[in-house]
Amino acid sequence: MKHKFFWVLALFTLSLNNPKILAQTLPLSPQLIPFSSSDGEQLLVESQAKQDYFLLSNQFVTQVNQAYCGVASSVMVLNALGLPAPESAQYKPFRVFTQDNFFDREESKKVISPELVSKQGMTLAQLGGLLTSHGAKVTVYYGSDVDLAQFRSLLVQNLAKRDNFAIVNYLRKTIGQERGGHISPIAAYNQRTDRFLILDVSRYKYPPVWVKTVDLWQAIKTMDTDSGKTRGFVLVSK
Amino acid sequence: MKHKFFWVLALFTLSLNNPKILAQTLPLSPQLIPFSSSDGEQLLVESQAKQDYFLLSNQFVTQVNQAYCGVASSVMVLNALGLPAPESAQYKPFRVFTQDNFFDREESKKVISPELVSKQGMTLAQLGGLLTSHGAKVTVYYGSDVDLAQFRSLLVQNLAKRDNFAIVNYLRKTIGQERGGHISPIAAYNQRTDRFLILDVSRYKYPPVWVKTVDLWQAIKTMDTDSGKTRGFVLVSK
Ligand SMILES: [Ca+2]
Ligand SMILES: [Ca+2]
Ligand SMILES: [Ca+2]
Ligand SMILES: [Ca+2]
Repeated sequence: MKHKFFWVLALFTLSLNNPKILAQTLPLSPQLIPFSSSDGEQLLVESQAKQDYFLLSNQFVTQVNQAYCGVASSVMVLNALGLPAPESAQYKPFRVFTQDNFFDREESKKVISPELVSKQGMTLAQLGGLLTSHGAKVTVYYGSDVDLAQFRSLLVQNLAKRDNFAIVNYLRKTIGQERGGHISPIAAYNQRTDRFLILDVSRYKYPPVWVKTVDLWQAIKTMDTDSGKTRGFVLVSK
Repeated sequence: MKHKFFWVLALFTLSLNNPKILAQTLPLSPQLIPFSSSDGEQLLVESQAKQDYFLLSNQFVTQVNQAYCGVASSVMVLNALGLPAPESAQYKPFRVFTQDNFFDREESKKVISPELVSKQGMTLAQLGGLLTSHGAKVTVYYGSDVDLAQFRSLLVQNLAKRDNFAIVNYLRKTIGQERGGHISPIAAYNQRTDRFLILDVSRYKYPPVWVKTVDLWQAIKTMDTDSGKTRGFVLVSK
């Protein structure tokens, strides 16, 4: 494939000479609709299940390292729920959940240590345990246990109500992204296109995207070799 | 005022016994409309000048200390513009502006040092200088130099276009908040109510709010004793 090699070489050379390319997120597969495009904006305006969007977007954060997607997602949801946060020296007298104070409570460290999460991320069960350690009520759903209709219906019902939130644990590759297991909150559902809005916490790598329900469902049914179980999602409330 | 004293004491006692109160942002003056209320959401849906909202909300951050509002606002706008970012050890090979790498460039430190900003914040002129040090084109407007109609028109024109952004430097007290000088990006304008949406970067203290144009204009015409000039706003592009 001479032509392909030429383009790889050209892009590589361009990226060496143009630091701007490195400042961008990765290109998106055509199966995904970026949130900040005119199509993506329209999907939000039309959405009839977007109650969670406004509360979550107010709390949107970037994961502080490349293994902290579960911590970043949890911090967003705990702040959106308004649960009591640990102290932070820099914000006194205010309190807010941060990726730095997330492991301050002994109950949290007992689920898994921050050092281990920084190395290998967390499993779906650990995500549920960590949220529980901060006083949230959590239901864990494994991808192996829900069919497509249940998946859609559980998430849509949640997104239409302000007092609970959903976080998904999925394989990026299945939705057309690079590449491994990932965790992020879901913020809205568009019924016309049957798509969910993922507020991707690795904001340096990908923007928020609208993903087809069937693609996301297949991505949560993938096997996580760390747990020996499938990925899935959690529903979280006070 | 016996009754008033009773309520102060009651609230104080409640706050000692209920950590949840400390997990909340401060109450809002009735002159402000919180973004994540049904009224606030409606103002965004109706808005005809909200192009900047989607790009900025994707980059929304919390200032990392109580003097870093100008740094946090700049990071949001630089990332929304897609300007070339310095390296971050934790995000390699990706690049993104963060409040940690914002002062990595020598040109930035020459405007003002991060140590000084951490102590006293920044003036409007320093905000402009710091954005310029990262390759942005910046126009600085002092509150003393723009009348109400100019203020509204300059911001609305900007908010309707995706390739430029606006950051305001205002006195919180004038818009009914606690209390000093502050800096945050503006994300949308609602013509029916004549209000701008402030994406307040001190998210531990206040949520995003819709503020009346006249209140915000009066708040940028206040004197900043650090500069001996009024506050104001900057318009920023590539
Ligand atoms: Ca893993
Ligand atoms: Ca919900
Ligand atoms: Ca100051
Ligand atoms: Ca603009």
